[in-house]
Order: sequence, then structure tokens, then C-alpha cells
Amino acid sequence: MKNARDNIFNNISAIIPEELFESLVERETLKIERIVSYGHNTPIGEWYDQSLDEWVLLLQGEAILAYEGGTKVKLQVGDYVLIPAHTRHRVEWTQPEAKTLWLAIHFVPS
Amino acid sequence: MKNARDNIFNNISAIIPEELFESLVERETLKIERIVSYGHNTPIGEWYDQSLDEWVLLLQGEAILAYEGGTKVKLQVGDYVLIPAHTRHRVEWTQPEAKTLWLAIHFVPS
Repeated sequence: MKNARDNIFNNISAIIPEELFESLVERETLKIERIVSYGHNTPIGEWYDQSLDEWVLLLQGEAILAYEGGTKVKLQVGDYVLIPAHTRHRVEWTQPEAKTLWLAIHFVPS
Repeated sequence: MKNARDNIFNNISAIIPEELFESLVERETLKIERIVSYGHNTPIGEWYDQSLDEWVLLLQGEAILAYEGGTKVKLQVGDYVLIPAHTRHRVEWTQPEAKTLWLAIHFVPS
């Protein structure tokens, strides 16, 4: 619907047994996604290894990203990071007592 | 720099004589941009008419978007809107007493 407005902080399920991924915009070369975590993390030993670049902005909560090789990056509200394609990473930790909200933009690397 | 983290609310100039546009990511098919307004608006009678789709998320402050045809959309923190390519629009108003921060994703329409 043209001109429609929505709010990124609204319509979050009360119960989130698993991390929640929702596409807000999806095109051939791009995906804009909202992710809700609630104490979730990526199982130890598992890595995201994506074919697209990903730009992530933390909108609410707190999280720690871990990269293969040992680097860890703590993210607080407003922090953003670019994760190039095939940069193996995992979500090490998200705040257990509150929902963590991410905006993720996935796009074709160039 | 890989793994580098930055904060979207930081490094905003104290003095903003004109609306401030900063590219955070720029690729062939995509631009991620931070925009800072401080009471700025688009001059009356002028319209943005863009060849790319634009997805906008208001991160701080308040604004009113106006579309050709008369629709106006008030945006508050967390509100987002998709502005399809060639949808003529202008920024009617931004909060005069505080800085308004926008995240804008520009991408090839499909």
C-alpha cells in the first residue's frame, strides 16, 4: 500500500520460542529484514556463511557478534556493522531479559 | 575495516545549516544513507522524484512527509515507509527544536 507507515517496534510477538526473521522488503538484489532475538544465540560451532553482504543495525537490546578467528563485537542501541559476504560469524549472545531488535539489510556484494 | 562497529547516533555535527546526507554504504544497486534534519524541509513546490525505490526509517525526532496529491504522513521514532521510485514527495516538516535522524535505503526497483 503506497504511503503506508508502519513502526519497527510494533507487532512483536509476546512469545518468541525461536529467533524471529521477518522480511520488510524483498527484491532480487536486496532484502530488508527485522530480526527479534530474546536471549537467543547461534549454537556453538555453527556459523553464518552468507552469499550476500549484510549491514546490521541494532535498534533495541544488546548483542555480541563473534567472528571466526576470535573477534567479538558488542552491539548496543544504534551500533551498526557491515558483515561482508562469506565472513563467518555467529550471534554469541543476546540480552536474556529483554527483546533485542535488529535491522538487517542483505545485498549483492560488488 | 572488517568487523568495525559504529553508532548511528554518534558524530552528528552540532551545527547543521543544511540537511546532512551521509552515505554509510554505497554499491551499484544500493545506498544506505543517514540523513540529519534540524527543522529543515523541502521548499514548497519542490519535489523529490527519484529513480530508485527508497525505504526510510525514522530513528530520532519527528517529521511529516507530503506526497503529491495531498497525502501527508507523520513519522515518529520507529516509523518506516517505502517510497517507490518516481513517487513525488517532499519533507513537509521536521522538528525544529531537536535533530531528526533518518535511515534511508535506496535501491533498484524491480
